[in-house]
Amino acid sequence: MMSGLEAEIIAIGSELLTPYYVDTNSLYLAEKLNSIGVEVKFKTIVGDREEDIIQCIKLALSRSHIIIVCGGLGPTEDDITRECLSKALNKKLIYHPEIEKKIKERFNKRGLSMPSICRKQAYILERARPLINEWGTAPGMEIREDNKLIFVLPGPPKELKPMFEKYIFDNLKRLSNRFVCFKSIKITGLTESQTETLISDLHRDIENPKVNILAYPGQIVIHISGYSDKDHKEAEFLVENMIGKFKERLKNNIFSTSGEELEEIVGKLLKQRKETLAVAESCTGGFLSNRITNVSGSSSYFERGFITYSNEAKIENLGVPKDLILKFGAVSKEVAEAMAIGVRRVAKTDYGLSITGIAGPTGGTPEKPVGLVYIGLAWKNGVSVTKNQFLGDRESIKFQSTQKALDMLRRHLLQKT
Amino acid sequence: MMSGLEAEIIAIGSELLTPYYVDTNSLYLAEKLNSIGVEVKFKTIVGDREEDIIQCIKLALSRSHIIIVCGGLGPTEDDITRECLSKALNKKLIYHPEIEKKIKERFNKRGLSMPSICRKQAYILERARPLINEWGTAPGMEIREDNKLIFVLPGPPKELKPMFEKYIFDNLKRLSNRFVCFKSIKITGLTESQTETLISDLHRDIENPKVNILAYPGQIVIHISGYSDKDHKEAEFLVENMIGKFKERLKNNIFSTSGEELEEIVGKLLKQRKETLAVAESCTGGFLSNRITNVSGSSSYFERGFITYSNEAKIENLGVPKDLILKFGAVSKEVAEAMAIGVRRVAKTDYGLSITGIAGPTGGTPEKPVGLVYIGLAWKNGVSVTKNQFLGDRESIKFQSTQKALDMLRRHLLQKT
Repeated sequence: MMSGLEAEIIAIGSELLTPYYVDTNSLYLAEKLNSIGVEVKFKTIVGDREEDIIQCIKLALSRSHIIIVCGGLGPTEDDITRECLSKALNKKLIYHPEIEKKIKERFNKRGLSMPSICRKQAYILERARPLINEWGTAPGMEIREDNKLIFVLPGPPKELKPMFEKYIFDNLKRLSNRFVCFKSIKITGLTESQTETLISDLHRDIENPKVNILAYPGQIVIHISGYSDKDHKEAEFLVENMIGKFKERLKNNIFSTSGEELEEIVGKLLKQRKETLAVAESCTGGFLSNRITNVSGSSSYFERGFITYSNEAKIENLGVPKDLILKFGAVSKEVAEAMAIGVRRVAKTDYGLSITGIAGPTGGTPEKPVGLVYIGLAWKNGVSVTKNQFLGDRESIKFQSTQKALDMLRRHLLQKT
Repeated sequence: MMSGLEAEIIAIGSELLTPYYVDTNSLYLAEKLNSIGVEVKFKTIVGDREEDIIQCIKLALSRSHIIIVCGGLGPTEDDITRECLSKALNKKLIYHPEIEKKIKERFNKRGLSMPSICRKQAYILERARPLINEWGTAPGMEIREDNKLIFVLPGPPKELKPMFEKYIFDNLKRLSNRFVCFKSIKITGLTESQTETLISDLHRDIENPKVNILAYPGQIVIHISGYSDKDHKEAEFLVENMIGKFKERLKNNIFSTSGEELEEIVGKLLKQRKETLAVAESCTGGFLSNRITNVSGSSSYFERGFITYSNEAKIENLGVPKDLILKFGAVSKEVAEAMAIGVRRVAKTDYGLSITGIAGPTGGTPEKPVGLVYIGLAWKNGVSVTKNQFLGDRESIKFQSTQKALDMLRRHLLQKT
């Protein structure tokens, strides 16, 4: 556990206590704060009741030096953060005509006049610094009280994020005497326990850099964060040193050390080599093509894709022999191979990727259970097929299949380099 | 604001204060609790420090009658929820040999022996009821203290959810004298403000049922929750009555009243009519096919899809005339029309859907800006094309395009009925 600056987050709004809102603000704030060596100690989510909000603010004041209060600054009756701060801190709310002017201008720009309920947004706590909101109407506040620092921000992420960047980030960065370096590496082709077996002796019992391993179906992400009270270079050295050791052990199971997705990495490799790709999907139903084309600029290497859901489509569009399907079934090594070769030939590309399998939840048999997926890769001089047995629900099996297909191509491209 | 039973959630674990974890447990718990008339009043997230955890538990005891504590029950040194509860409640931890036996059996089943660190999971607070964990090793606890009810659950969602269902849900349902009915309706084809203009007079200032409108790109979801202290029928009547009024105003812009996604609704309509579909995508790159095939059983109506990213693919696989592309460009009404007709003909289906546009962020021009998307629908006796200008990033434009394509088909199928 680090022992640098510590902060507390209070999110205000009854909607945040319903099942409909994912609290993305806190994730954003935690990331930003951690990146400058500020640790989040508490997060509290509270509804729109005055007594509850006041209690939360008072409690935060009693235990934390940096407090970030989000939400409840809107114009409606439910928005009572200003009033609650006033009561909790025993400070008056002061009307700022220049703020009302700004809010009015914002409405006028859109050809509207300011609703009178917005006038309360022009009130700021006495001795607080108003934080002008260029992305919405409600201004934020910076309050210095004894040795406490309280930031108040509007709840909508589109306002909160730029305001945090503009008014708070550098402010806290100066306060923090800690330099932090944060990187993450991504792995595919190993299970979580295989990964841990390979590297646990390298990071176990080490607090700086801190290593955090998160496992997802088809992918493992390792977060490494190091800090230094001297300079950024030292923090970076700690992290890079650890990554270097991980690389020795995990080799090219690591596909990214800068946050990129697998489809971006494969795209970069293809672009570098000026080579092209076409895909033929059955059970993944377009997921693979969709991932590939989520990368801007993918049109320079992705030529086309076929979702050959029916046998007729496999036969007509890819030239898979009908007999092959009848003899081995659509989900088979033989058909995956023919699909990969076929799509490469039809699209005249350097590579052809194919996927055929059973995504479930129905359609499985004892011989060909749900999660059985054959993946083919064809290139100029050859073709290879892998047989995979994935676990999970339909979408997870679809994702894992596309991950494996992209990884087969990635490893093939790396080998050739 | 309802005034039935109230609960407080405490989530324990330093990882929950990092940017990597989305707190899905709280959303799940809020949904379940709300469905039986229990309102969540506070959510607190706290790290692995003893003094902080004890403070949170004591505070919750001072202000809430139902407290749900999640996480920190694992076998590692960081997992100190048991010890903190013991100190906060001033109750001893008692060793339960029958629990250790169960944990050992769980390991043995997988051919492993129980690591000695797991032994601490066999300790339960005195006078607490152990909640046996069939989905993991750490048991939960139910503690009754004065007029307080404290539930302690392990943090992993795969354990927390089934344990909540098994041990807590019915328990709280009996305590709650409130009957709740919750439904949601989904809308596409209207903006948020269009929707509000049409219905705001129906729900404004009404507390029961409560109406919550959430807008997403391409979709609006309206949550309606009503309650009754008499019986479920009354709660349901309130909700259904409101939905009936919404239906009169919003007509067939409502595509779902039972939570289904648009691709499920379209799938159902096609299945009912025993009709088939093929799609040709350019800028959406497989997203449309992927959505359609996320529905289990879609193979009965989805025949095949083409991702014709290159012009050659459009010409070769769909029979789009080369001259048409040269004259009007690949992103044009004419090409969208030819793609829809072409894919329907090639795949011999009842319907053909096509999408061609500019997903961005690059590739836009003053005449054909990013977000310009033409969508075509071909059927036996005709074809129609819409010109759309979507806003947002690449993935959002891709989603909105698929949403519009599915909605064009949905409205066409409804018309024909």
